[in-house]
Amino acid sequence: MKVLVVGSVAFDDIESPSGTREGLLGGSASYFSLAASGFTPVDLVAPVGEDFPLDLVAPWKERGIDTAGLEVVPGGKTFRWSGRYRGEMNAAETIRTELNVLGTFRPKIPPALRTPDLLFLANTHPATQTSVLDQVKRPRFVLADTMNLWIETERDALLRLLKSVDGLLLNEEEARMLSGERNLIAAGKRILDLGPRAVVVKKGEHGSFLFSAYEFFALPAYPLVRVVDPTGAGDSFAGGLMGSLASGGAASLGALRRAMVHGTVSASFAVEAFGTEGIAAASAKAREARYQEFLQFVSI
Amino acid sequence: MKVLVVGSVAFDDIESPSGTREGLLGGSASYFSLAASGFTPVDLVAPVGEDFPLDLVAPWKERGIDTAGLEVVPGGKTFRWSGRYRGEMNAAETIRTELNVLGTFRPKIPPALRTPDLLFLANTHPATQTSVLDQVKRPRFVLADTMNLWIETERDALLRLLKSVDGLLLNEEEARMLSGERNLIAAGKRILDLGPRAVVVKKGEHGSFLFSAYEFFALPAYPLVRVVDPTGAGDSFAGGLMGSLASGGAASLGALRRAMVHGTVSASFAVEAFGTEGIAAASAKAREARYQEFLQFVSI
Repeated sequence: MKVLVVGSVAFDDIESPSGTREGLLGGSASYFSLAASGFTPVDLVAPVGEDFPLDLVAPWKERGIDTAGLEVVPGGKTFRWSGRYRGEMNAAETIRTELNVLGTFRPKIPPALRTPDLLFLANTHPATQTSVLDQVKRPRFVLADTMNLWIETERDALLRLLKSVDGLLLNEEEARMLSGERNLIAAGKRILDLGPRAVVVKKGEHGSFLFSAYEFFALPAYPLVRVVDPTGAGDSFAGGLMGSLASGGAASLGALRRAMVHGTVSASFAVEAFGTEGIAAASAKAREARYQEFLQFVSI
Repeated sequence: MKVLVVGSVAFDDIESPSGTREGLLGGSASYFSLAASGFTPVDLVAPVGEDFPLDLVAPWKERGIDTAGLEVVPGGKTFRWSGRYRGEMNAAETIRTELNVLGTFRPKIPPALRTPDLLFLANTHPATQTSVLDQVKRPRFVLADTMNLWIETERDALLRLLKSVDGLLLNEEEARMLSGERNLIAAGKRILDLGPRAVVVKKGEHGSFLFSAYEFFALPAYPLVRVVDPTGAGDSFAGGLMGSLASGGAASLGALRRAMVHGTVSASFAVEAFGTEGIAAASAKAREARYQEFLQFVSI
């Protein structure tokens, strides 16, 4: 099955208790693609500036990531994000955001990419996400990410989007904000009423929840003794999840549970190193070993 | 198998978003006994004051809780705790603590209670916990609770205790404080080195971890749409866990995993109502139904 991600490619500057790194390859589409390509070929649509050295993503071809949809904006500069993690590293502190080419990005999906089986709408303005949906033949499963900014400032556009997606991925705080419910279980149920048939709540080191009309499902995070850089954990989770769904062939609830384990495993590799280095380095063998190990961690 | 708990019986005043209640029956031994008695008979040792109306615990006999070890301290007043929960209710804010008879409690285990198969040392001064261990024939499994106060002020006594118990129950913050590790997984592993062969970390709404020399195990919390009063969740968890171990006959790692699910279920009943009302009202049928439901929530 064909997987398409529309999102960002970025340069990230990261400060964490493990050190400081500048100009790391980052962005939602990068993390997602690297995670999903462990399972299935991936098409990527994202903007970069003229400053972006395309040889950075040349090795991705061998992994089955087609970067034909990487749009080099003439005269533009690549999106750059600088962030800091401290203490228990539960939340990033944004030092600086330079949207650059991302600020004016109106994705045009190339004709060859308009029939994805699975589509991941990485976090951007909900109207932009909707415009992507309008350009593609209805995929089997559409998963959207969002953020607190859009929930606060673009609620109507977001609510419209939610009527057209199959799954919504968001973190605890966002789930509470979107639903108006303080209790996270109540929040998940309330969001189901807004349209998606699957709501995945990411809880960082506390794992994840899946809400659907028929069932509730909960997973812990993969237990890591050391987290180096949590950036991209959510997009890597989404990549493992969608890759697993693509390789399994269908988005049944059983498949979604297994896909969430793969998402959990992908996220664990992502946060073990700076930037995309961890998820890029995770071999099929290492991923499978961690998947099996994880099943032991949660079996009763 | 015989289960003994040494802890507190208290009056609690609780403020939560669900309302305000005064003079609720509380205390670690109360929550523990009510949860464990769903599985097995329980003996309780705890001090109360002359102000304690013994008819409050008279109905416990029918549940298999033997209150012969309830020590009425002449001229004493019952331990009283006033606390408040706000917002996401993750932590209690203590308004007032009146230790009263608990402040001078030196438990004397009645001769008939000195051969428990399982022993729960509820949270008190670690030297007091050790004195209980010194009075009983070595049980098959000893589980101890503790708190931030003892970790900070009585570390040596606590470290001595840890060399003599099988399991330690503590929350996230306490695990970090005791181990000096910020990462919770590293913390759990470090605490194993201090003596216990099982370390159970309670994470409230985020579930629980089990660390042992051989394995790691993680569970989410039971998903509740509404939490009324989190007081006693940890002691109810311990009660369900130890009750399950007692009824199963052994503390194998497989039995511990199932016992943690029972602990999770017990805690979920406890927090659904004020004081001990929730755990006291949970029928065997309701507990079994929630246990089976929970297995579905976490099965992959």
